[in-house]
Amino acid sequence: MTDPTRAVPVLRNGTLAETDSVAVETPVALVFNGISHAVMMATPADLEAFALGFALSEGLLASRAECYGIDMVESDAGIEVQIEVAAAAEMRLKDQRRSLAGRTGCGLCGIDSLTRLDLAPERLAPPAWAATLSPVVVQRALAGMGSHQPINAATGACHAAGWSDPDGVIADVAEDVGRHNALDKLLGRRAQAGLSNADGFVVMSSRASYELVRKCARLGVPALATISAPTSLAIDIAAQAGLVLYGFVRSNQAVRYAGGPSGEG
Amino acid sequence: MTDPTRAVPVLRNGTLAETDSVAVETPVALVFNGISHAVMMATPADLEAFALGFALSEGLLASRAECYGIDMVESDAGIEVQIEVAAAAEMRLKDQRRSLAGRTGCGLCGIDSLTRLDLAPERLAPPAWAATLSPVVVQRALAGMGSHQPINAATGACHAAGWSDPDGVIADVAEDVGRHNALDKLLGRRAQAGLSNADGFVVMSSRASYELVRKCARLGVPALATISAPTSLAIDIAAQAGLVLYGFVRSNQAVRYAGGPSGEG
Repeated sequence: MTDPTRAVPVLRNGTLAETDSVAVETPVALVFNGISHAVMMATPADLEAFALGFALSEGLLASRAECYGIDMVESDAGIEVQIEVAAAAEMRLKDQRRSLAGRTGCGLCGIDSLTRLDLAPERLAPPAWAATLSPVVVQRALAGMGSHQPINAATGACHAAGWSDPDGVIADVAEDVGRHNALDKLLGRRAQAGLSNADGFVVMSSRASYELVRKCARLGVPALATISAPTSLAIDIAAQAGLVLYGFVRSNQAVRYAGGPSGEG
Repeated sequence: MTDPTRAVPVLRNGTLAETDSVAVETPVALVFNGISHAVMMATPADLEAFALGFALSEGLLASRAECYGIDMVESDAGIEVQIEVAAAAEMRLKDQRRSLAGRTGCGLCGIDSLTRLDLAPERLAPPAWAATLSPVVVQRALAGMGSHQPINAATGACHAAGWSDPDGVIADVAEDVGRHNALDKLLGRRAQAGLSNADGFVVMSSRASYELVRKCARLGVPALATISAPTSLAIDIAAQAGLVLYGFVRSNQAVRYAGGPSGEG
């Protein structure tokens, strides 16, 4: 596997003297039963978990049991992740491809017109602790994530997605140049380990966009806390899903935008 | 046009007391001569410039003259931007769609397998000032951009792309929840005004990913300076294009990663 960081010669403040460690960004192709599905830019680490997490959080696989095996093939062009899936998943994938012919844009994978847009998320049945998740707990979780981000510590260019228990104790952290990829890696690892997503929450080093909320809702994550701001659609979808959404979680503040007992912030 | 910000009720530090201003994220569909091309999440402001900038920076239009007109149609589902383009551009678009059937992933629009990946950028003929662009100038430009980011000042959730002259004086700033969109809006505005991109450089509030470098190279921008880190591929593509790439531009530092007179950092 390619190293996730690389040393490059740089001119720092006008002086050519040092090398700098930068995050490697590699094209990663996801191929399901021989069918090319998507190419994404990602940090070349933990790609099995990435592939599984992506397939689950995008609804391509209904469960981990539909994934029979994952192989990695490296070439000069990038890394191809070959995922062997159940016949039911392959049919789902082919149906999607048939209905989605044509080039599509970033942000809404596979959607090329507004009529195909369906943003309605799964409705969660959140555990009792989630509705009363406190600012102190989400602040503790985000503070605790910092020491588990080795690639970002070296490069300053990686997002992180962490898993926290209901008390704000970090259990796992995944890193990637893309925030969606970091979340997919984290959720993929949990699926590999057969862990439930009902007994904790996700913390992220990024803003909260609607895709992150959607992915969490699809996989039964009851709460999401991000360092930076949420967008309006992230708030709307969290509210629809019944997902607790915190933003601007810093040492001195934490703002709840959705998922309170009464429904609003 | 929808307002780019929205007030929402929030629970700040456990107290339900205030509303918070959040950035609106709206599905925006780009439709060329009646053909749906892509749907992106964007800040609903300056969408004519966004559509033109996207079409140019993605190589769908060879020049601004190929764009005959732009109309906006709002619905509950989002905003449809209808772009009337020349027959030559429509043929280019249809060819692309034919060769790119199938669902595609974020990050590499329209690419669903590694064999279709072509990252080789246009080679720039940068002006003399670009090769000697100094840390002080890029620091001045980024510092100057801050006062031109009203949506981010209100919400904390918007990226910004600014245009600086060779002395670090900011001439224009575009904001969007997506960094690529912010750049497309900036470059679209310049195209609308018939301005050359050879006589200044782009500054951005984000990390430098390969797409930002690629878009700049395609439209003849000789230098790019970002607040945060570049990825390895952004550096590689900048080096191939001959584009000057600065990262980590803060008050106390600026690191040049590509485009020096000798080719490296």
